This record gives sequence, C-alpha cells and structure tokens, in this order.
Amino acid sequence: MEVVQTIAELRARIKTYRRNNDQTVGFVPTMGFLHDGHASLLQKARSQSGLVVLSIFVNPLQFGPGEDFERYPRNEEQDLAVAEAAGVDIVFMPSVDEMYPTPTRTTVSVSEVTTRLCGASRPGHFDGVATVVSKLFHMVQPDQAFFGLKDAQQVAVIEQMVQDLNLPVEIVPCPTLREKDGLAMSSRNVYLSVEERQQALVLSQSLQQAKTFIDNNVSGSFTSEELQRLVSKHIQTAPLAVIDYVEVLSYPTLEPFEHSHSITTLIVALAVKFGKTRLIDNLILQVRK
Amino acid sequence: MEVVQTIAELRARIKTYRRNNDQTVGFVPTMGFLHDGHASLLQKARSQSGLVVLSIFVNPLQFGPGEDFERYPRNEEQDLAVAEAAGVDIVFMPSVDEMYPTPTRTTVSVSEVTTRLCGASRPGHFDGVATVVSKLFHMVQPDQAFFGLKDAQQVAVIEQMVQDLNLPVEIVPCPTLREKDGLAMSSRNVYLSVEERQQALVLSQSLQQAKTFIDNNVSGSFTSEELQRLVSKHIQTAPLAVIDYVEVLSYPTLEPFEHSHSITTLIVALAVKFGKTRLIDNLILQVRK
Repeated sequence: MEVVQTIAELRARIKTYRRNNDQTVGFVPTMGFLHDGHASLLQKARSQSGLVVLSIFVNPLQFGPGEDFERYPRNEEQDLAVAEAAGVDIVFMPSVDEMYPTPTRTTVSVSEVTTRLCGASRPGHFDGVATVVSKLFHMVQPDQAFFGLKDAQQVAVIEQMVQDLNLPVEIVPCPTLREKDGLAMSSRNVYLSVEERQQALVLSQSLQQAKTFIDNNVSGSFTSEELQRLVSKHIQTAPLAVIDYVEVLSYPTLEPFEHSHSITTLIVALAVKFGKTRLIDNLILQVRK
Repeated sequence: MEVVQTIAELRARIKTYRRNNDQTVGFVPTMGFLHDGHASLLQKARSQSGLVVLSIFVNPLQFGPGEDFERYPRNEEQDLAVAEAAGVDIVFMPSVDEMYPTPTRTTVSVSEVTTRLCGASRPGHFDGVATVVSKLFHMVQPDQAFFGLKDAQQVAVIEQMVQDLNLPVEIVPCPTLREKDGLAMSSRNVYLSVEERQQALVLSQSLQQAKTFIDNNVSGSFTSEELQRLVSKHIQTAPLAVIDYVEVLSYPTLEPFEHSHSITTLIVALAVKFGKTRLIDNLILQVRK
C-alpha cells in the first residue's frame, strides 16, 4: 500500500497502473476516521477492481459556519491500518493547500435533489460535496466509485452530477452498516456521551417501526404523513433528541408524495441532534403494490 | 474523417484510439458555422495531436432569453468540408436531446472572472459555457483543448475551471483571426448588413488606436480610463454602433486597475451592437516598464 500526499504523485501512480494493466480502478472517497462502514466500501472496491484508491480528506468546503470542521475526528494511524487490512493499493491524503492552493472560484451545484433533507438544513453543503467529488474524480479517473447509502442524499447528488456532466464513472451505492444495537455507523458517533449514545438508538428503532408498519399494512395503503408522525413520535421518546428533520420522500427522486399509491420506493430520512452532535440515518423501502 | 452523433459512439472511438496509440488527443469544441478562425484552431490541434476531435454543438444553455439561439447560423455541409480540409479525425455533432436527455440539474459556475464584460451583459452565459465544456471534456477526455482568444473571457473561465476542478486537460489559447480589413472573424458576422459590416471596422480600428497610444506613450504611464475613453470615442464615430461595454482590465485576472503602473498585461475588451447583432473583440497588450 502506498500513501501519497500530492495530486501529481497520485496521477503518476494511477497512470503507471493504467499503462501496465487492463483492470479497472475503484475509488472510495472518505473524510477518514474510518469505521466498518468505510471498510465495507473498501472491501467491495477490492472485490471488483484491479486497483483500489482511497482518499482521506476532510473537505472544508462542505462544512458550514458553526459546523464541526475544526473538531471533525481524525486518526491517521488507525485509518492506514483499516486501509491496509481492506487491501487498499493507494491512499491519497492531501492537505487543504494541496486541494485548494488558491480559493476555488468554481462551484459544481446540483439542484432539485438538494432542496430537502440535509440540503435544506445545511445550505451550501452539497455544493461543497459535488465540487470536491468532481475534483477527486478528475484526479483519480476511476471506473467505479463506492459510496455508502447512509448518506443517501449524497449518493443522489453524486449520481445526478455524474449523469448531467457525463462523468465517465459508475457510482456504486453500498448498504449502511450498523452497530450490533442498530446505530448506523458514523465517524461522528465518537462525539456522543454515554447517555446520548444510549438514546441515539431511537433513530434506528424508529426506522424499524416504519418498516414494521409497512410490512403489517396489508393494503399497502398509507400516507407519508402517517409514517412521518410514527417516526417522529418514537424519536421524541428520547429526552435528549432534538429533531432537525424527519421526512418521508419518494426514492431516488427525493420528492414529496402524499399517498403510497403514487410511488414504488420510499425513503424515511432523519437528522437528529444530541447535544452538539447531529446524526443522520435513513431507510429505503419498497412499497407493496 | 468520421462523423458521430452519439456520446456512446464518440467514447467508443476515442477508447479504441487510446488503446492502440500513445499519442495525444486534441479537442476543438465549437458551435459550428466554421470560419478561418476555427480552421486555425483545428490546424493547431492537428500539428500537436495524434487524434483531432471537433465538436459542433449550438448549446442552448449558454444563450439567454431573447438572444440568438434559434437563428444562430448553421451550415453542416460547409463545416464538414472545413473539418476535412483541416485534417480532423472525428467530428462529434450531437443533438440537443443527446446532450441534455433530461433537464440538467447540475451547473458548473465560475465566479470572479465572470463578474465583468460578457459575464455582466449576459447573465448565466458563462454557467452555460462552463457546464457544456465540462460535459464535453468528460466525453472526449482530451489531452489538449484549443480555444480562440477572441473569446478571451471564455478562455479565462475555462482556464479557471480546469485549475479549480483539476480537469486533466491542457488549455491552449490561440490568437484571434481577422478579415483583411481587420474585422475579427466570427460566425455572427454573417448577420451584418453591408452598411453595418462597413461600420463594424471601428472595433478593430479602435483597438489599433489603443495599441498606438500605448506604443507612443514613452513614459508607459496612463490610466485605464484614458484608454477606455479613447476606444469608446472612436467606436462612437460609427452612427450604427451601440456600445454594450468597453472595458480596460488587467489580464488574465480581468480585474479593474486605475493606473498602468500597477499591471504588466492589460486587455481592452469591447462588445458593440449593430442592429440585432452583438459583436465582441479585444486586444491583449504588454505594458512597458
């Protein structure tokens, strides 16, 4: 496994690989502090690609004022161990100056799929995501890129960008990994106090209740509002939980719907704060017809 | 020379070329109605590249409401003859539906260099340019792309985008070609009446006067306003000329300056309407120190 810090070195190594191999290049862009969720993306990339490239970069552009850019958790040593164990070939760990040597004047913006959920709660966030991911795609030029569905809206944004800008890369969405008790894996879980960590279980529980509600609903007939209320109500049983949003939308369009009759797949997506820590989770479900 | 209409076919042909050759791919994106200015870009590409790709696409995204998208001149047969003569290998002529099968939700925007000149006169124009050029770059994946300096601000926008988004392409700016009497070559010249065509000579003449003024200015000391006034005054000798803008800026930053002491290279850029026809021209000059 090689660790490279500069774009020039990254490009040179990938170019050499391409010159000598006909196999594909798989890419997993991350912000580091890798957990088993990231590891599952790397393993997927390993199983499908000749060369596996991991990037670790906490991108200032996608953090708003007052968000947690400064304190976002970092652990280079552990990250390299996870990468090594997953069979990564190249780890790209650029500095902020390497990525943004001058203030960027170019922004990639995706509309529509960004109007709701985190797009509404975190103005500018997805511009920062789309811009940095397009930069990374131009550096790595991968055949496939692997993203976790815990960030379902991020996946929708990237897929829209790839389609609209004709980026020559296939996006591979991968399932959310969870702790044994159901909490979705996230680098931000480390922020939680013991009490917050315990109460944060309402997130995955509430999504499970939504699933049970749909499974038990023999007619397959319900409104998005019913589902939204059910989930919100359960989250509110945790005294420390402050709901940012709970939304039930059609998937993958991320558009509102009234009645289950009008859709085939839905997403229940939520963002909840525990103290200073904002967690997100979601469940994507087929609607019985 | 091969003419292809679909992105899939374009990609397939370039991929085959890349697989069998180590030479570079040169790309000239145009809106067609090719004149000697375009031909000079194609010849430059031919002299530097193993494979020369020309695209012809009148991009609706870069035309504002009330602009000349509908009546923009087209002549496929003549374009193919110009391309053939210049030694083009692949002509890519997509339909609007091929380029935008669904309404695009992704926009590439460049700030700062777009605040003045055509960026101010034509809101949204450079978003349309940056977005379509990034799409074309993703399709062709050229080593070099050739652009004419008559559209100096467009070159600045593309160079900024390439730098900020780390696009793996080298931008090659090429000098403006002129008719014998000095008029900058443009597909839009065909719109001009005989009288307008005659009066349009004030554009290149006024730029020549600016050059003479600087050449004769032994101290090398002048203000941008002096130069701006000189140019505007000459343009106004043409009764049919309606000035959109005449600006004197530092180059390539396209920022205003007061005094020649503070800069090394300047651009005199102008946009002038004759009836419905809007023409642009510019001159880039070193300042004596």
